[in-house]
Amino acid sequence: MTILHYELCGADTAKVFSPHCWKTRMALEHKGVDYTTVPVPFTEVAAVEGGEGRRVPVIRDGDHVVEDSYQIALYLEEAYPDAPTLFGGEGGKALTQFCIAFAQMQFNSVVSRMALMNIYDILAPADQAHFRTTREKMFGQSLESWAHAMAATKDDLVASMKPLEMMLKSQPYIGGDSPLFADYVLFGPLQWLRVVKGDDALPQEGAAADWLNRLLDMYGGMARSTPLAA
Amino acid sequence: MTILHYELCGADTAKVFSPHCWKTRMALEHKGVDYTTVPVPFTEVAAVEGGEGRRVPVIRDGDHVVEDSYQIALYLEEAYPDAPTLFGGEGGKALTQFCIAFAQMQFNSVVSRMALMNIYDILAPADQAHFRTTREKMFGQSLESWAHAMAATKDDLVASMKPLEMMLKSQPYIGGDSPLFADYVLFGPLQWLRVVKGDDALPQEGAAADWLNRLLDMYGGMARSTPLAA
Repeated sequence: MTILHYELCGADTAKVFSPHCWKTRMALEHKGVDYTTVPVPFTEVAAVEGGEGRRVPVIRDGDHVVEDSYQIALYLEEAYPDAPTLFGGEGGKALTQFCIAFAQMQFNSVVSRMALMNIYDILAPADQAHFRTTREKMFGQSLESWAHAMAATKDDLVASMKPLEMMLKSQPYIGGDSPLFADYVLFGPLQWLRVVKGDDALPQEGAAADWLNRLLDMYGGMARSTPLAA
Repeated sequence: MTILHYELCGADTAKVFSPHCWKTRMALEHKGVDYTTVPVPFTEVAAVEGGEGRRVPVIRDGDHVVEDSYQIALYLEEAYPDAPTLFGGEGGKALTQFCIAFAQMQFNSVVSRMALMNIYDILAPADQAHFRTTREKMFGQSLESWAHAMAATKDDLVASMKPLEMMLKSQPYIGGDSPLFADYVLFGPLQWLRVVKGDDALPQEGAAADWLNRLLDMYGGMARSTPLAA
């Protein structure tokens, strides 16, 4: 049975850009399961699969509805034990939580500050209004003034990538010789930035750039072929 | 047979302070093996176990001499498979490399900048001369001017600990319900700071402070009982 993968999209529904949904998309590819994307604009996320206040990614696999990219990866690992592992054992499951926290506190923070208005720009009008209202309430100021005051640069991104850059001197993936879910955890925010702001927003040289390119080429170049912001 | 653990020490040989040696000390305790510390001042590190240019930690276990805290942990995992695991499987081994890079690029960097002169102060005179010569060549300036120009604060340390602080909302240790080697990898630099600068250098509240306290209390409070700088 085909797994449904509810993914956040822009006005162009092929522009799927959520870092968390990208983690799940790569995990589904890694497991080699049949899945289909259900693009969901911001204003429809909460009600996905009959929910109230849901957040994407959400998957439906037969009777199973699972929310949250880490929970989905744990589900896939258990439901498809014969497919390539996403964690490489219990230690890998636990340590992935540190990678999630790292990505959240360092990558996601920098990407938000680099690309807030780029995210806004790719949304459909109703979603722009929703995005503006919810974020301006959170920031206590207009999107534009927050984006200006908090602006981050590619140098900030490169600085936050230093641990990844250093680690890649020891092995080609966070997972070792081949990627594990932890690789997709750090890939998600970078692909988010790529989709909303274009390739030029990312460093093009170094071990982390090479690692990113290898992930973009995997699975038939699926991630690379996703349309980017003009 | 008792394992020999060569550890960097100050003028007071009980002041073992290297972040990397602390990772190994905790790993030896975790495995519950018999070991004894051989304190080594800076000027004697290179020649440990007949070496030329060695770096500590180094262990001797019977005929096996192993250098580098990660390599030592891999060795202990293989040599003592019936003792508690340090990695929780192959995924854990791979992901530990990301934790090592994180600790090196974020914690070690901040601690060096917070505590350079404190490290100098606890060394014996011959080691102070060695430390000054090697570091001043590396920095291209005096210890004092580098320490002044690069000074970091407890706030910088707290900022670098954000991923750890966030992760600890999900689970009590990086290893999950109990520590793995990855916990000791992040513990090492913080214990280094504690030994050379005292408890006040570290945050005393929050999830990371609680985690640190739990690790200090483990193994009969071994890490807590190590003498700190006056």
